[in-house]
Formats: sequence, structure tokens, C-alpha cells
Amino acid sequence: MDISSLAPGVQHFLGQAAYSELGEFESLARAVATAPNLAVKEGLSSAAGRALSKHHGLITEIRRRGHEPAVEMAPFVVSLDAFRAKTAGVNWHELLLSCYLVGGLLDDFFIRLSDGLPRDIGPRVAQLLGEDSGTDVLVHELQTAIENDQALGSQLAMWGRRLVGDTLLVARSAMPATDPTNGRAGSNESRIEPVFTELIAAHTRRMDGLGLTA
Amino acid sequence: MDISSLAPGVQHFLGQAAYSELGEFESLARAVATAPNLAVKEGLSSAAGRALSKHHGLITEIRRRGHEPAVEMAPFVVSLDAFRAKTAGVNWHELLLSCYLVGGLLDDFFIRLSDGLPRDIGPRVAQLLGEDSGTDVLVHELQTAIENDQALGSQLAMWGRRLVGDTLLVARSAMPATDPTNGRAGSNESRIEPVFTELIAAHTRRMDGLGLTA
Repeated sequence: MDISSLAPGVQHFLGQAAYSELGEFESLARAVATAPNLAVKEGLSSAAGRALSKHHGLITEIRRRGHEPAVEMAPFVVSLDAFRAKTAGVNWHELLLSCYLVGGLLDDFFIRLSDGLPRDIGPRVAQLLGEDSGTDVLVHELQTAIENDQALGSQLAMWGRRLVGDTLLVARSAMPATDPTNGRAGSNESRIEPVFTELIAAHTRRMDGLGLTA
Repeated sequence: MDISSLAPGVQHFLGQAAYSELGEFESLARAVATAPNLAVKEGLSSAAGRALSKHHGLITEIRRRGHEPAVEMAPFVVSLDAFRAKTAGVNWHELLLSCYLVGGLLDDFFIRLSDGLPRDIGPRVAQLLGEDSGTDVLVHELQTAIENDQALGSQLAMWGRRLVGDTLLVARSAMPATDPTNGRAGSNESRIEPVFTELIAAHTRRMDGLGLTA
């Protein structure tokens, strides 16, 4: 499924993806600060470093094109900050699950969208975003907690379902607006759908891996 | 002035320095999360990345020696967490000043102490800790704020004096205990003094650079 023609312009893409990775970093940094023990704190610090390095890689691309990172990210601050606040979770495990699921979904999404970027930048961005996120520690922490506490498993399954909805809405807003009176937009919608189906399938595999029903 | 013989063992050094850099990272990450605008947020994210990279460099040294990072850092958690809490500041500018002054002082201190480490590790650690901390953004933010608000300048000058005291106490605790009934310890004390004088001189230059009276 080709979504090239649905991709936003390069500047739009880089600004949004860069601010999105910065948000992921901030969530992980909050997890570092509140980690229950040193081994987990240490593992999370690596994951935070990976998100930060993706962010800085995107910033480098923005600068390479002669633009100012703060200017390019500005249009996305309000909606992405609101999104991060909404998906922060009310406790440690919800925060971990958010870092893992939202980070995974948005990386997948931006990698997919990067297909539509010019050849001198798309593949490089896809490689950057596809780098290991260091989230093994998140998976291990969540798996252990869920195995030992059935009620927590139910709570996190619900939280995961809410996260996928909110994240897909944010992803959707990164793509051209759909206007039902416009034939082309309607056809856009039908081309977006398979991409989202694919994103949801990857999300479901992550949920399964944790022992959660998607 | 040679403090080689006052240096703690390698494991002690690496555990303490690694946890200290992680604390610096956490303070900077908090500053990222609360930055008043995107340009400052972006600059702070680089500084946070530098502290994190120093931390991970030290973790690599611990692993290279066959030790477990969490085990090596554990003895320093209580005292360094208490130190970070005490030096967090009550507002944005106090937090920034802490990140800048504490980070600078502790880097200087551990670089000095690394003179006493074995040759197969000391110089490498000194180089790692001496890398650019990316704190230009902190200096610029603080200078601007202080120039425009005399009352803030007085408040931050006081805060800076308190920070240097607390930080030197933490640094002192990284060195062999002084026992006044012990002749050697007394002589240790007299050899430590010039090092601290040097650290304070560098601290004073940082304060001057901000327009603050040390």
C-alpha cells in the first residue's frame, strides 16, 4: 500500500516527527526519574537516550535544510502536548505502557509516512526511526507485573485500547484533511485505511507480547 | 597539587560518578519538560543528552570491568538523591542555575579525582567528563534573566552560594574520611584543601560569567 501521495511536506513531517520524539523522550525521562529500582532506572535511561537521539537526528535534518528547529516544531506543540498529557497515565505501569505503545506506534507511523519523502531524505529518516528503541526493559517490567497481578492486566488492557485510539487520532492529524465533499479526499481516506490496519496489527502484536488482550 | 593517593578505588569512583551524571541528566530532563519556549527546550535537550552520554560512558566502563552498573551505583543513591532534592531549586531559574553550577563543579571534581585512577582508565574517564556539556543555553538564559531583573540576580547569587556549599560537601564525601586522631588523615585534609580552592575558583568564574557575585 503506497501512501506517498498522502505524506505531508518534508518540513511538516520533520517538525512533527521531531517534536513527537521529544515528547517520547520526556515521557521516558519521567519514567527514569520515578523508576522503582536502579536496574530499571538504568535500562530506562538507555531507552530515553534512544528517543533523544532520534529527536536530535531529526533536528539535524531540519538544520541541514537551513531551517530553525524551534520554528518547525512550533505548529505541533499544542496538539502534541495535549496528547502527551492525556496519555501520561495515572501510575507507573500506565506510564510505562504509554512509553512503549505510543512510541512504537508513532515510530511505525512516521517510518511509513517517510516513504512519501524525497529520496535524499526519506530512507535516512526511516533508518533513524527504525533504530532499536531500547524498550526491552519496558517489556520485561510490564510482563512481570502483569503476570503477577491479574487486576493490573485488565486495567492495562483497557489503557492500551485507549492509547491506540488517541495515538491514531494524532497520527491521522498528520495527514491531509479529509473533506467528504471532495472526491480526492474520499479516495485518500480509502488509501489511509490499510495503513492504519497495519499499524493496529503491529500494536496488537505488542499487546499480545505483554499478555494483554488488544 | 596531586590528589592521586586520595582517590577512592576505581569501582567506588565509577559508581559514584555514574550516578552523579544520571542525577545531572534527571535535573536537565526536568528543565526540558518545563522550558518556557521551544528554542530553550531544544538547547536543554542537547545538554541533557550530553549528561546522559557521560553517564552511559561511565556505565560502559563499569561493564567493561565485569561489574553490574546497578550494584556499583547502589551505595550512592540515598546521599545523591537527597543532594539532588536539596539542590533542585524552587523555580525555573534556580533549577537552571543548579544544573549549570552543580554539573560544572562535579565534572571538575571527578576529572580531578580521575588523576588517581589507573592509567588504563583514568585518562579515558577524564576525557569523557571533560566533553562539552552543551550548557551555553543555560548560561544565555540565566544571563538574560539576571540582566533584566536585579532582584532575581540577588536571589540567584544567594542560591549559587548555597549550591557550592552543598556540592563541596557531596564531593568531600567521595574522598577518604578524615579522622582528626589520625595523622595521615590530617595530612590528607591539607592536601584536599588546594583542590577545593581550585574547584571554588572555577565556580567563581562561572558565577562571574553570569553576572553574579560568588
